[in-house]
This record gives sequence, structure tokens and C-alpha cells, in this order.
Amino acid sequence: MGLRNKIDLNSDVGESFGNYKLGMDEAVIPLVSSVNIACGFHAGDPHVMQKTISLAKRYGIAPGAHPGFPDLLGFGRRNMDATIDEIRDYVAYQIGALQAFATREGLKLQHVKPHGALYNMAFKNLNIWDAMAEVVSQLDKNLILVAMAGPDRENIESIGSKHGVKIAFEFFADRAYNQDGSLVSRREMGAVIHDQQEAADRVLKLVKDGKVIARGGTKISLAADTICVHGDNPAAIRLIEKIREVLGAADVEVAPIAEFL
Amino acid sequence: MGLRNKIDLNSDVGESFGNYKLGMDEAVIPLVSSVNIACGFHAGDPHVMQKTISLAKRYGIAPGAHPGFPDLLGFGRRNMDATIDEIRDYVAYQIGALQAFATREGLKLQHVKPHGALYNMAFKNLNIWDAMAEVVSQLDKNLILVAMAGPDRENIESIGSKHGVKIAFEFFADRAYNQDGSLVSRREMGAVIHDQQEAADRVLKLVKDGKVIARGGTKISLAADTICVHGDNPAAIRLIEKIREVLGAADVEVAPIAEFL
Amino acid sequence: MGLRNKIDLNSDVGESFGNYKLGMDEAVIPLVSSVNIACGFHAGDPHVMQKTISLAKRYGIAPGAHPGFPDLLGFGRRNMDATIDEIRDYVAYQIGALQAFATREGLKLQHVKPHGALYNMAFKNLNIWDAMAEVVSQLDKNLILVAMAGPDRENIESIGSKHGVKIAFEFFADRAYNQDGSLVSRREMGAVIHDQQEAADRVLKLVKDGKVIARGGTKISLAADTICVHGDNPAAIRLIEKIREVLGAADVEVAPIAEFL
Amino acid sequence: MGLRNKIDLNSDVGESFGNYKLGMDEAVIPLVSSVNIACGFHAGDPHVMQKTISLAKRYGIAPGAHPGFPDLLGFGRRNMDATIDEIRDYVAYQIGALQAFATREGLKLQHVKPHGALYNMAFKNLNIWDAMAEVVSQLDKNLILVAMAGPDRENIESIGSKHGVKIAFEFFADRAYNQDGSLVSRREMGAVIHDQQEAADRVLKLVKDGKVIARGGTKISLAADTICVHGDNPAAIRLIEKIREVLGAADVEVAPIAEFL
Repeated sequence: MGLRNKIDLNSDVGESFGNYKLGMDEAVIPLVSSVNIACGFHAGDPHVMQKTISLAKRYGIAPGAHPGFPDLLGFGRRNMDATIDEIRDYVAYQIGALQAFATREGLKLQHVKPHGALYNMAFKNLNIWDAMAEVVSQLDKNLILVAMAGPDRENIESIGSKHGVKIAFEFFADRAYNQDGSLVSRREMGAVIHDQQEAADRVLKLVKDGKVIARGGTKISLAADTICVHGDNPAAIRLIEKIREVLGAADVEVAPIAEFL
Repeated sequence: MGLRNKIDLNSDVGESFGNYKLGMDEAVIPLVSSVNIACGFHAGDPHVMQKTISLAKRYGIAPGAHPGFPDLLGFGRRNMDATIDEIRDYVAYQIGALQAFATREGLKLQHVKPHGALYNMAFKNLNIWDAMAEVVSQLDKNLILVAMAGPDRENIESIGSKHGVKIAFEFFADRAYNQDGSLVSRREMGAVIHDQQEAADRVLKLVKDGKVIARGGTKISLAADTICVHGDNPAAIRLIEKIREVLGAADVEVAPIAEFL
Repeated sequence: MGLRNKIDLNSDVGESFGNYKLGMDEAVIPLVSSVNIACGFHAGDPHVMQKTISLAKRYGIAPGAHPGFPDLLGFGRRNMDATIDEIRDYVAYQIGALQAFATREGLKLQHVKPHGALYNMAFKNLNIWDAMAEVVSQLDKNLILVAMAGPDRENIESIGSKHGVKIAFEFFADRAYNQDGSLVSRREMGAVIHDQQEAADRVLKLVKDGKVIARGGTKISLAADTICVHGDNPAAIRLIEKIREVLGAADVEVAPIAEFL
Repeated sequence: MGLRNKIDLNSDVGESFGNYKLGMDEAVIPLVSSVNIACGFHAGDPHVMQKTISLAKRYGIAPGAHPGFPDLLGFGRRNMDATIDEIRDYVAYQIGALQAFATREGLKLQHVKPHGALYNMAFKNLNIWDAMAEVVSQLDKNLILVAMAGPDRENIESIGSKHGVKIAFEFFADRAYNQDGSLVSRREMGAVIHDQQEAADRVLKLVKDGKVIARGGTKISLAADTICVHGDNPAAIRLIEKIREVLGAADVEVAPIAEFL
């Protein structure tokens, strides 16, 4: 992994619910190569899932599941003391539900990326990654599990190997990194990179050289397969366009993870 | 269909939710040949679904989905003005979610039977059957759709043919029938047959002769593939045992629908 | 009621939920005299209710409850076969919950206006109005119940009298009316009045003369205490401003219903 | 507080939901003096709340609110990373909703006791007690807040004083205590006292002497105003009867907290 001339761009989509609209899915989906679709627990509903899978199909974007905690009120962003068994079953349920919509459109899901608090808690308790990898392997051996690039890489890779599941690692285009490869906490100054050119240049450096300038100025090695981008506002959309422009100028192709992992 | 020496017994199971226990699943599952498993909308939750699929596997009982309206508070028994599109997506979502648990256990779902108000509304608006048959055919051509035996048989069969989906018809062991093959409404006297021997004898007559004594005493023709029984209380369990005893004495085998339909 | 130089403007607010934002509450609240606040069943959540009550207090706008069906997914717009007892308890629960936020801010609720499908169903089944009036009278004799001006006026007034509850009637600024005083269905051409000057002039005519030009051109009598306006988009906000301008030029004061009913 | 000839018995009730029945409310309510009624977040629904308040009225038992986290699936027993603001609003919402049912029956709520994870988290983070005491004082200065007797007593009392809210402390009839007055964790041997006579004798000793035999045999001082008992099974009901018998024989009267606090 690491140095290559292909990279995936992924974005969280399908987060509307009933009468509530969230995100600019129509704008963002054609600009990325993979989408993480909410599955009705923290966001999304059956009708939104159907529409989102159908949009992914229209633009040839690889669909993935974005399972979260059953906490619509908190948008899946609040830690919940769920047991490993509960988490396993929540994830299975949500992947299965989304698979139905993919099947109806003649598609297969490409990947699974946990959402919000579930994602964050999994890095604190690797048993959660183990449970998720197990479920993924039981449901479809070709499903890729997406995790954050950083200090837990080796542990998560060995969990993947144990269950025969490929792991893709993601990099956050607009976030600063610590020297150990972890994200600078949002509570700290400079956690978010607001300059779009700088963010795009960092993505290019990561793809071409496998390097990131960490906080403090040190260059660190970081390998990633997919870049997480957002689609909730016009500025976020422009950042994706900027990233594509910079990558295109450097002959880096934007392609779904499954094409090269 | 109709006269044969095999019949299916089906029961609604997996209706517990979180801390709330409903039904005597451990007792009823070994006594039937097919189970209709709630999928988390009107009843059931991911953990209950997992346990129920696992019980079905242990006893070799054919699992099916029992999708309903998103109305846990009303147990899916209240009509809701959902559109055909909404219903299609609700049903797809629930079947997909349950398929995940079946897949994890190495099982395939055998059938889909709508629950409560969704089931009842479908007989008033055949477009609902059409939408459900379409979804079923998209998800798995081998999935059998279960409908009530009675006056709508031909219409529902032709909807099934249109989508290439097999329809199984069910008979209610403990309910009285009108002369047109419809159920006597629960609001009327004599709608429920309380004598267990009489109920079991009616099941046998249906299986052997394809006949039911309708209200008023006329013998009518009615063909069914599966007998709906309940498992919510000890008396219901005893009725299943009585039915098995009467069927067994007459050399009728209890077997999952997919074995003979 | 009828001819007077005061009128209330009411708008549905507090419809956001968790991470989902709906409506332009900050813009609309200062422009109306009464607000109907969602209570967490079809929309709204405890935090949104707190913020909305607090906004109402800041601008001196009279708060009211906007109870709906427990159907967040359908935004309370889908008819549900709830029993009268269920409806009574749903309405009591929601009013009570909102009263808590009002009490915390030292306010009293002014009114209750049912939302969506609950509102529509009540005109088809006056027992629902009876149940709601009963609950309102039990919770606070000063609470005003809001209903649609039109052919059911007398029936609803007599229900109000029976329970000692004042009824206020509302007029829709941007909707066409039939000759019997009922709304032209949205499925028909011309149901919505898009010209803002025309809409504002109709409001003025209603307030000053108690008359509306119904479909077909006949002038009919219609008495209303409050005008329903919307706040979901900038055009809706401009319509409220236009109505205030036209009313102001004619010396009609915009004031909460409780001030003059 | 402490030595007196009156004590309150409280029990969690109204935990059924829709079609799901939980607890033996009809049996337990007449045996206690105060009930903690679920408010629709972790358990209970509007109809159940109405029925439960009505039962409390019939037997002259003092009703209180039992607010919890919005986690029906986890029965409010799972810690959730809700903010203090969210908790404040959740508690206000639930108390208000229950007040409506009390008002309809001409009753006032006597107390508020947090449920499950909310209760447990509050002892880890006293800001939660502060937020709850603040809400209680805003809604009704006469509402008593119930907390666990034990090492946090002084802190919680001073929070109560700050907001002008009376605090009642509860003792668990069937639980062992550590020497610091905290509960022995359920994960440890001997955490639950199964012998009913012993449990009842401990209650009597607590009431008469303000003493408990802690684990290890030391006698410690512990003052409590109310005894928490359960009503989920016949053995629990028998324990309440045994406690009443032992208290009665010692001339201790069972009475709602508000009568003597």
C-alpha cells in the first residue's frame, strides 16, 4: 500500500431522514469514488437509502455501508455503552439492510466504514474492530473494512488478516496530524486545515510520497488508500474539486478502493 | 396445491425488544416448520433477530421475514397512510436486515410474510402485494411470499406470476371462515375457535380434503399451504401439539413450505 | 369574533431534530405573534423545544403546543389508525412536555394546535376534537385550541363550549377556499396563491370585512382569529413581511390571540 | 432525618411499552407508598403513563417521575455521552410529560428519581445532579429529588440546598453495602441479599437505628428516607410484604416521603 497513482475519495452520504434533508448528495456523489451510506440508525431511512444507492449507481460510484449507533437524536456521535455483542448485531443489521437496496439495483457493496462514536470507540477498544471484521467476513468476504490511518494500523491489519477481511485506511484531507500519525484533536488550535490549496497539496504528498507534515513540522510516513472528504456545504464541495484538480495535474487517478487494494 | 400429505406450520416469533420479552419462542419454534421473524420495525431488534435465527437453525426450522410498519408503539397493528414507495423500501430494508443474520448462520430465508396492518392493508390495496412481490423477486427469486387463503387468491397468484414469485397461502387454525373464504371478523361472535380438538380437526380436513366448514354450516373449498399458529401462551402451545397429534395420526407430515410448494 | 382591528399571525416552529435543521425560526419568530412548537413526536426534540421557547420569550411571542402523531419518519403527515384514547394520551404527553419548558422560562402556553395528519383527521372525526378539547381543559382552562375556519366551525365551537375551552379559528394566507369555506385541495389547480400582494390583500379583506373571494368568484363570509403563515424559506418570510405591511397600512394590529379572543 | 417511625417504600413502575408488558404494577402499587413512573424515554408510553397515574390515584400512592436516557432499546441502562444541557432538557421534558397525566387526575408529582444509567452517571459527575436539581426547582419547588444514600450524601445535599430542592435518600432492601456506605457491586459475590427475612430485618435496623451491617461485619451509620423495592416477579412482591410485616410489627408506618421529609 502507499505510493501509487490511484487513490479513492470517500464521503458520508445518505444522511437525510424523512422530511429532514442533510448534505449535498447530488453534488458530492459525482465527485468522489466511494460513498459511505447511512443505514437508518444514526441517520438515513429506507427511502433515503434507496435513493442514495440509485444515485451511486447512476454515477458509477462504489457504495459502502456506514453503520452507527441507534441514536438518531445524537446523530450517532455520542458514545454508548453497548456490548460487543450488541455492536456486532447492530452492524450486521445495518449492512444487511443496505445490501438489500444494492441488490435491488444489481450492485454489490464495496466497503463498510463505521460512523461517528462507533468509529471513535473502536480505536479505544480493538474488540470492536474484531467484532466488525468478523461480521463483515461472515456477510461478504469481498467487503473492505475502512479504518483511520495512524498508530493503530498494524493492530487493525492483523484483525483483518484473522478474519480474512481487507482493511483500507483513510486520511482526512482537512485535518492536522500528530507525529504519531493520530489526528490532532478538534479541541486544539489548528486541528482543521482551512486553506483548500494546502489541504489538496497534503493529499497529493500523501499519495505520491506517503508523507504528511505533522504538527511541529516533522515529515512523517503515513499510508492511506482513501481520502475522506465532506459534502455538507459549498466550501466542502469546492475542496473536493480542488483535490481532484491537484491530483489530476499530477496524473493521480481517483478510483474506488476495490480497484486497487 | 391443496390435497397433499404435507403441510407447513408457521408462527410469528422474534417479537421481543430490548428488555421486553414477548412470546414463548423457545417452546414454539421446535413445534412448527417455518417461523416469521420480526425485523425491528414493529417488533424485534438486532440482538433478538440474531438469537431467533440461531434458534431456527438449531431446530432446523425454515426462517422467514415478517416485515411490518415502523410503529413499535402500536406493534405494527395500526394502519398507516404510507405510500407504495415507502412500503416497498420498508419491506426491502427489513428483509435485507434479516438476511444478514441468516447469512451469518449459513442459512437462506425461505419466505416473507407481511405483519399486522401491512398484511391487512395489502388485501384492501393489491398494489401493496405488487410492491412486495417486486421487492421479493429483486432480493431473492426463491423467496416465497405468504398471503391469506381466501377470495383474493387468484389476484395474488397473478401478481406472483408477474414477478416470478411463488405465493404460499395460509389458513388460520383457530379462526372461523365466511362462505367466500374470508375470515369472520374478530368483532363478530364465534370468530375464534376455542375448542382445540375442533381446531385441529378443521386443519386436518383442510389438508386432506381442501374443505372448511364455513359459518352457517356450508362446506367450502379452500386450499392452503401453511397453517398459522400462535406461541404467546401455554394454551397456544397446546393447540400446536394437538394439531401435530391429529395430523400425525392421519399420516400428514409437517414440513417447511419450500419442501413441497 | 370576525371584524376587528387585531389579528394573530401563527407559524409552525421548533421542527428541527437533533442534527437536522428545519425552518428559519430565528427569522420567522420575530415576525409573528404566536408560534406552534413541535413537541418531539413528529418533529422537535427536548433541546430544540428549550431553544424555541427561549426564542419566543426573547421576542415576546405567545408559545403554543403543536402536538402530532408519533411518526418522525413521516413528519406526522401520515394518517395513523390511533384510537381516541391513544390520541388523548399523545396530546396530553406532548402538551405537558412543552409546558415544562415554558414553566422553566416563566411562561404559560397560550394555545394548542394539532399538527398534520392529526389536524386533518380531526375534521373527519369530531371525536378527536372532543378528546383534544377535554385534555386541554384538564391541563389548563386558559389554553386556546386552534382549528381551521370553515364548515366545521359550529361543531367545533360546541365541543369547545362543552369542555369550557376557547376555540380560535385560523385562515391560510396562501390558500384558495371553496364556497363552503373549506380549503381547495392541494391536488387541484389554483389551490395555492403564489402572488404575495394578492395573499396579503385577502388577509386584509378577511380581517376587515370577514369575507373571502372563494373559487368561482363568489364572496363568502369567513371569520378567523389567526392567520397561518410559513417560515420554511425566504419567500415565505417575505410573505409575512408583506402581510404585516398591508395590515399595518390599514391600522390592523398583529397581536397574540389571547389578547383579543 | 434517620431515626423515625415512618419510612417510604418506592418502586419503579409504568415500564410497559405498547404491546410489551413489564412488571406487576397492579400487585406492587398497593404495597408501596411512592412510585417512580417511567416517562417514555427508556420505558413507558403515554397510555401506560395514564394508566399508571390512575392506579397510583386509586390506591393513594404518591407518584413521581423516573426520567431516563432516550434509549428504549437499552432500557436506559447504557451510559450515553449526553451533555449536561441535553440531560437537563431530557429531564425537563419527561417530568413535564408526566405532570400532564398527574394534572389530569388532579394529582401533583411528589418526587423525581433518575433511572438506570442516568442515575449511575450522576454519582460519577455531580454536575448531573446539579442540572437535575435546577430543573426540578424550576418546575416545582415542592418536588423532592431522590438519590442513593451513601458517600455522596453531603455533596448532593448541598446541591439540593443551592437550588432549594429537598433531597430524599434511598436504601436498597436487597443489596449489600460497603463500609463507606456505597453499594457492593453486582459483579461481586454477595452483592444481593436473597434471604427475605434478613433483608426485611436490615430495613428495620436502618429505620430504627440508622445502622447497616456492612460487608465485613462492621456496623455503619446510614440514614435513608425511602426503601427501594422491586415488583418484577412474585418473589419481589413477597419481599415487600415481608418488609411491611416486619415494619408493622415494630410500629413503623409506611408513608410517602412528602409526609415526613
